[in-house]
Amino acid sequence: MREPKPQEDLQAIIDDIYRELTPRLGEGKVADYIPQLARVDARHFGMAIVTTGGEVYRVGDAEMPFSIQSISKVFTLTLALGKHGENIWNRVGREPSGSAFNSIVQLEHEGGKPRNPFINAGAIRISDLILAGHTPKELIGEIVRFVRYLADDENIVIDHEVARSETATGYRNIALANFMRSFGRLDHPVEHVLGVYFHHCALAMTCSQLAKAGLFLAAGGTNPLTGHSVVSRQRARRINALMLTCGHYDGSGDFAYRVGLPGKSGVGGGIMAVAPGKASIAVWSPGLNDYGNSLLGSLALEMLAARTGWSVFGP
Amino acid sequence: MREPKPQEDLQAIIDDIYRELTPRLGEGKVADYIPQLARVDARHFGMAIVTTGGEVYRVGDAEMPFSIQSISKVFTLTLALGKHGENIWNRVGREPSGSAFNSIVQLEHEGGKPRNPFINAGAIRISDLILAGHTPKELIGEIVRFVRYLADDENIVIDHEVARSETATGYRNIALANFMRSFGRLDHPVEHVLGVYFHHCALAMTCSQLAKAGLFLAAGGTNPLTGHSVVSRQRARRINALMLTCGHYDGSGDFAYRVGLPGKSGVGGGIMAVAPGKASIAVWSPGLNDYGNSLLGSLALEMLAARTGWSVFGP
Amino acid sequence: MREPKPQEDLQAIIDDIYRELTPRLGEGKVADYIPQLARVDARHFGMAIVTTGGEVYRVGDAEMPFSIQSISKVFTLTLALGKHGENIWNRVGREPSGSAFNSIVQLEHEGGKPRNPFINAGAIRISDLILAGHTPKELIGEIVRFVRYLADDENIVIDHEVARSETATGYRNIALANFMRSFGRLDHPVEHVLGVYFHHCALAMTCSQLAKAGLFLAAGGTNPLTGHSVVSRQRARRINALMLTCGHYDGSGDFAYRVGLPGKSGVGGGIMAVAPGKASIAVWSPGLNDYGNSLLGSLALEMLAARTGWSVFGP
Amino acid sequence: MREPKPQEDLQAIIDDIYRELTPRLGEGKVADYIPQLARVDARHFGMAIVTTGGEVYRVGDAEMPFSIQSISKVFTLTLALGKHGENIWNRVGREPSGSAFNSIVQLEHEGGKPRNPFINAGAIRISDLILAGHTPKELIGEIVRFVRYLADDENIVIDHEVARSETATGYRNIALANFMRSFGRLDHPVEHVLGVYFHHCALAMTCSQLAKAGLFLAAGGTNPLTGHSVVSRQRARRINALMLTCGHYDGSGDFAYRVGLPGKSGVGGGIMAVAPGKASIAVWSPGLNDYGNSLLGSLALEMLAARTGWSVFGP
Repeated sequence: MREPKPQEDLQAIIDDIYRELTPRLGEGKVADYIPQLARVDARHFGMAIVTTGGEVYRVGDAEMPFSIQSISKVFTLTLALGKHGENIWNRVGREPSGSAFNSIVQLEHEGGKPRNPFINAGAIRISDLILAGHTPKELIGEIVRFVRYLADDENIVIDHEVARSETATGYRNIALANFMRSFGRLDHPVEHVLGVYFHHCALAMTCSQLAKAGLFLAAGGTNPLTGHSVVSRQRARRINALMLTCGHYDGSGDFAYRVGLPGKSGVGGGIMAVAPGKASIAVWSPGLNDYGNSLLGSLALEMLAARTGWSVFGP
Repeated sequence: MREPKPQEDLQAIIDDIYRELTPRLGEGKVADYIPQLARVDARHFGMAIVTTGGEVYRVGDAEMPFSIQSISKVFTLTLALGKHGENIWNRVGREPSGSAFNSIVQLEHEGGKPRNPFINAGAIRISDLILAGHTPKELIGEIVRFVRYLADDENIVIDHEVARSETATGYRNIALANFMRSFGRLDHPVEHVLGVYFHHCALAMTCSQLAKAGLFLAAGGTNPLTGHSVVSRQRARRINALMLTCGHYDGSGDFAYRVGLPGKSGVGGGIMAVAPGKASIAVWSPGLNDYGNSLLGSLALEMLAARTGWSVFGP
Repeated sequence: MREPKPQEDLQAIIDDIYRELTPRLGEGKVADYIPQLARVDARHFGMAIVTTGGEVYRVGDAEMPFSIQSISKVFTLTLALGKHGENIWNRVGREPSGSAFNSIVQLEHEGGKPRNPFINAGAIRISDLILAGHTPKELIGEIVRFVRYLADDENIVIDHEVARSETATGYRNIALANFMRSFGRLDHPVEHVLGVYFHHCALAMTCSQLAKAGLFLAAGGTNPLTGHSVVSRQRARRINALMLTCGHYDGSGDFAYRVGLPGKSGVGGGIMAVAPGKASIAVWSPGLNDYGNSLLGSLALEMLAARTGWSVFGP
Repeated sequence: MREPKPQEDLQAIIDDIYRELTPRLGEGKVADYIPQLARVDARHFGMAIVTTGGEVYRVGDAEMPFSIQSISKVFTLTLALGKHGENIWNRVGREPSGSAFNSIVQLEHEGGKPRNPFINAGAIRISDLILAGHTPKELIGEIVRFVRYLADDENIVIDHEVARSETATGYRNIALANFMRSFGRLDHPVEHVLGVYFHHCALAMTCSQLAKAGLFLAAGGTNPLTGHSVVSRQRARRINALMLTCGHYDGSGDFAYRVGLPGKSGVGGGIMAVAPGKASIAVWSPGLNDYGNSLLGSLALEMLAARTGWSVFGP
């Protein structure tokens, strides 16, 4: 593999990417199922890279907070693995879903057991699992503290407007949760579980914060910036494996093919990606492609991977 | 990543794996849909590793030929990409299938376009694509020559008994091909396409041959043993990406999680796996797990990955 | 067709049926998804026939009220047709569902439009349609008054315990309603719609009341006992057609084949059936068959049809 | 029910219908999946009624033969019930399919057991059942003789051009048959079964012949014109029930709602319908509606039912 050269090179690369994409800013379709997301300006674009060596590179709106939405599922999965270990796989599968991200069909076909922790049903089930012994409020607090710890940044907060809006209009997620409940697949009241789910999806973070928060996955489970050991080396690999196979809904295969890095997207237009041993990357561009993943964000990562030679499928 | 030590170490590791698995030989269910596969002794076990540096390690029945079946789809995909380039993705998707490997449901749902080139429907479509300008017989000859070239071994042949048997009783594949034809998705007569498909699936290879044939995928597209440049670096990565997301039918997510290496399984009990930059691995054990992948073969690869530290999701 | 003879004959026939079925009372599985239904004694059995000439025949527990559940969907459909006419078919289909009665799969496949007004999703949509211009409470009152008018009996009431219980635990129906809402297929708040739905399903009626309430369908749209013209002759036929093709969930074809009369079943074990031009019949036996329809109730109707010669598929 | 008046009335009614529909002749989409069907002039229209009293009424192209296609499934079902009785229901279901008529999805979901004898898969299975003890050629001869016997007309023949064409290009039916075979659901070789199926679908009949052939179903199992007792009264009813619930693919509910008579359509544009106790009706107009049933044929039957008052859901 052609190794990326030191600092100046990575900065030059993302500057180039930003320049090349600038004429296309605004492409894609901004998520509009809740007003708070719909009114985000489609022309935002930010990108941040944090290397395992501790260097940070930024371009565009890398310091502007956005709604991380489904990217938060990586953090709740990490918490769930910490609390319950491999037992969670009795409750949630780990296979790609092969259909639209909020599809209820597969769920019925499989008796209410979600295919993986990154589709909505699976993440709702994960919220349910980590609720054990907590009130929703306590758990939401714990999730926020965990993400702050990962990113080493006390300024990360939940956007309560977004959370409220999802609570009021997230009909499909309400349907999914009640559907799982009807199969006896939730341990806690539907409103508690959804309360947690809607709040962790409403976390607002910048690209820089997000890249830092994901760095432990690029570095064998330990955040090299803080020295915090988050998960074991094996678990970091496994979370990366799940992101690669399931992280982009029904576009996961396409992302793996074109970008070649584990990543998790959110409907707010963010993507967190991991180049194992090299860096953690966050990109944000609100316009979505047909799969519901950031259109220019995916493209920026494809360009980055091509120019740095970063790919888990190398050399 | 903990690097595997030189030669003696890898040999010791696979010797250990073989020893540990010996009491379990015969576990799993041998494919019985055609007699030629059903009468294989379930207790066979072979494994071969060829490193990018050229060392070869073997254990058990590594020199005994077996029916590679769906592993051959990697080779026909490689041919198709060579002949038609990225245009093939207009005809075949590249997303995990999310359901049983020979499922016809998704195919109907998506108007006869197969989800990916590694499910049966997709591989049949690939056979159809590479038939352009050839008779079936010519193409079968070309495929055999290509695999011999990859493995640098003129002794590789098709088991015509197996091919005949599939032709006579491969009802589901006949159904899939006619189904795609009914959507106008095949360019050539059904019997021609299936003739090619059944024959390339009937290739008989040893673990050693298979590991050598896959080495170009571990080494950036060029076989370091022969110096043959097979595909570009980027294409090798992309084929690896497809193997990782789609290579084990509905158990692809599980394999990625547990083993962490791109691989392709066949119903004959073989698996070809790739540790990019390190080695190509082939394992054979006829008993299958519930997903239709080799039970002990998957386990052997999981053990190998754990002990060598090989994982694309490292470090 | 062998015409049933006058009064004594029909009474003798249902006495015979009751006698023959007595050893089997308790067979089938009582619905247990809400406690109020689960604690009903499985050995109840009642049957009532009201002829278009005004004779009434009863046997067993024909005067004991039970939860009519989905049978109420016939009455709300009749109301909806009265209020909105054939326009309702833009919102609800009229094809058999071909899958389990509360399946959410077909609903997603068809963009949130229910297949017919007798599956749960369709009846929820009907509740939504007739809510226009009403509060839920008003509408529930109107439905009760309508059923009392049909049966000419002021004693018919809603079992509020059952309604409360469904409200608290009817997760699948809550899922269905939210799912339709997510497709923009409900005009009113989910809780209002479900409030109506759960209450009309909780109507408690006796076999005698139910047979009287359905008599207008046997008599060309007019109740011959009261002289009330409920619907046109054509509409009565059409409601009968819907009951025949869709009235027994995924067992509708079986019921048509064996019984040959339009009918609507409820999970409480009741069935209301119609012999056009002859009689309206209600039967109640709480044990359900695999399709979720009354096991002995279906059998009793099959015996009645065989002995009277009543069948729409005659002569 | 308003009884239709004697002969002159029925003739006047169908004359009226023909006159009213004349401006619309050519509407709908002629089946084009085989050339022999595609080249039929879309403006043909014929209708014939044979009453249980023996009167015959005709209008338009009532004496022009057309390809009856799926209408033939009623005759093979009748043969199968004669040979195997109610045991056939262990092999074929009798529920409406709830999806497109040649859908393979439900078939896989239900392990290769067709939903009912009128979808293609079910009729193929019926052909397989009645093949027991016969060569395909013998059975095809028997089917032709049976239809001639029903219609009391020795001139009925198979259009071998159509049969050949289906054999050459009926990919979807070939897929269905192989698919069932892969589940072990066919007792005879696929080509034999399809040979029978394609030939009985290629029967060419006139409206007059078809109406006569169906008369036994309107008359309690016995053809009143010939005195031939074809099936028992109960069996005639049951076949009518199957036609009503399953006779028009995914438009069966719609046909029952609008027309109210048992009927079976064919992709050649024919419909055979039954008014129990009154008459047998055949109509032919090649243009199809979205469900694959004759557009103007369905409409003509709806008009006939409205004007005669014929409906099984009467009075």
